[in-house]
Amino acid sequence: MSKKKDLTIVCFSGDFDKVVAAFTMATGAAATNRKVTMFFTFWGLNVLKKEQGRKFLGQGVLAKVFNFLMGGGNKLPLSRLNFAGASPGLMTSMMKKHNVATLPELIEAAHALGIRMLACEMALHILELERSDLIEEVEDVVGVATFLNESEDGHIIFV
Amino acid sequence: MSKKKDLTIVCFSGDFDKVVAAFTMATGAAATNRKVTMFFTFWGLNVLKKEQGRKFLGQGVLAKVFNFLMGGGNKLPLSRLNFAGASPGLMTSMMKKHNVATLPELIEAAHALGIRMLACEMALHILELERSDLIEEVEDVVGVATFLNESEDGHIIFV
Amino acid sequence: MSKKKDLTIVCFSGDFDKVVAAFTMATGAAATNRKVTMFFTFWGLNVLKKEQGRKFLGQGVLAKVFNFLMGGGNKLPLSRLNFAGASPGLMTSMMKKHNVATLPELIEAAHALGIRMLACEMALHILELERSDLIEEVEDVVGVATFLNESEDGHIIFV
Repeated sequence: MSKKKDLTIVCFSGDFDKVVAAFTMATGAAATNRKVTMFFTFWGLNVLKKEQGRKFLGQGVLAKVFNFLMGGGNKLPLSRLNFAGASPGLMTSMMKKHNVATLPELIEAAHALGIRMLACEMALHILELERSDLIEEVEDVVGVATFLNESEDGHIIFV
Repeated sequence: MSKKKDLTIVCFSGDFDKVVAAFTMATGAAATNRKVTMFFTFWGLNVLKKEQGRKFLGQGVLAKVFNFLMGGGNKLPLSRLNFAGASPGLMTSMMKKHNVATLPELIEAAHALGIRMLACEMALHILELERSDLIEEVEDVVGVATFLNESEDGHIIFV
Repeated sequence: MSKKKDLTIVCFSGDFDKVVAAFTMATGAAATNRKVTMFFTFWGLNVLKKEQGRKFLGQGVLAKVFNFLMGGGNKLPLSRLNFAGASPGLMTSMMKKHNVATLPELIEAAHALGIRMLACEMALHILELERSDLIEEVEDVVGVATFLNESEDGHIIFV
């Protein structure tokens, strides 16, 4: 069996539906013996925040307000038909009904499958987030050059 | 002439403008002798629904409501400046004025050019859609692993 | 040192945050000796308009209205939490505070690093824009086939 192509997913979006799509592709690829890296930046960092709800993170007023409004993993909106945040919950119940893995289960599965989760250094910097604001599963904080180097032989998908 | 690289487009979005962009890249690639696969998932499935307007599809209440609100190919919104659904029609008239293929023409062209259109099994499952709810042109209903295997030697673009 | 893989970024989105992400990846890749091409289409063309504010461009009424509403490089909205256009300015001040390059600086850097900026022929046509409506830094106006041919050996990222 020849080596399968690596997969890197740039998780820029923090929309619930896109994040679910990203983790579904990532875990599907890892489960079929592919090396998978997920690079989280900007809105995507919300998925990795320890604090699942809304919290004032950062030092400056602007960073605090943005981080509060962006929220954490429990506050991801649907990209359309969000209905003030009701839809991700409804969508999750549709996923459970059909025995499809929910987002927290997908994150856990990703970690168990050895998928590397990296956080974008510059985005953390702009949003005044610290490594300690992120969940343990995050392997490293890196820059764009590092992520490009590691994706040299693989697909890059921007979500 | 060496073989040109394959192209796989993951059509996650159901936004009118992004769907037009996806089909424009797909048909442009196929017309220049590339093997092209389009994998439709989540909002992208709206493009493939037989029913072009809004219809209650699925069994459960939630699925029925989501499918109604998502609508079919005639109800795709513009990703910005949608103006309650008026813009895709205006955009189509701008496309016709300049002899640019409209969305139904692009779908027909894609089929004629031999572009494979695949539907995502899991998304159909969550949204309680059946194969029979989709247009004839859909070649197969497959999972993430299948689509990754078939894209091994090509570009993957996520729209 | 072996040749690094080329990078092509399709800039479809005109959202401020996504455009910043596109230029950050592009300049990061070019600074580490990669050949980078940016292909701007649809909303992405707003970034390249000479006129930074809102202006009626094109001949027909529809094109004029769309171009006015889409605006130029100073009017890019944030993809979420836009607050009637206040957020990109706030975001820029957060970027300046942390010595991160702002969007005009990134465009200038991209040009200085030899990144090729191409505009999509068909999108210009639909929106009734002329080459002369775009900034000098745009190298050429090309079609989808040209951009695919030039990306044959590289990554393609759709933003």
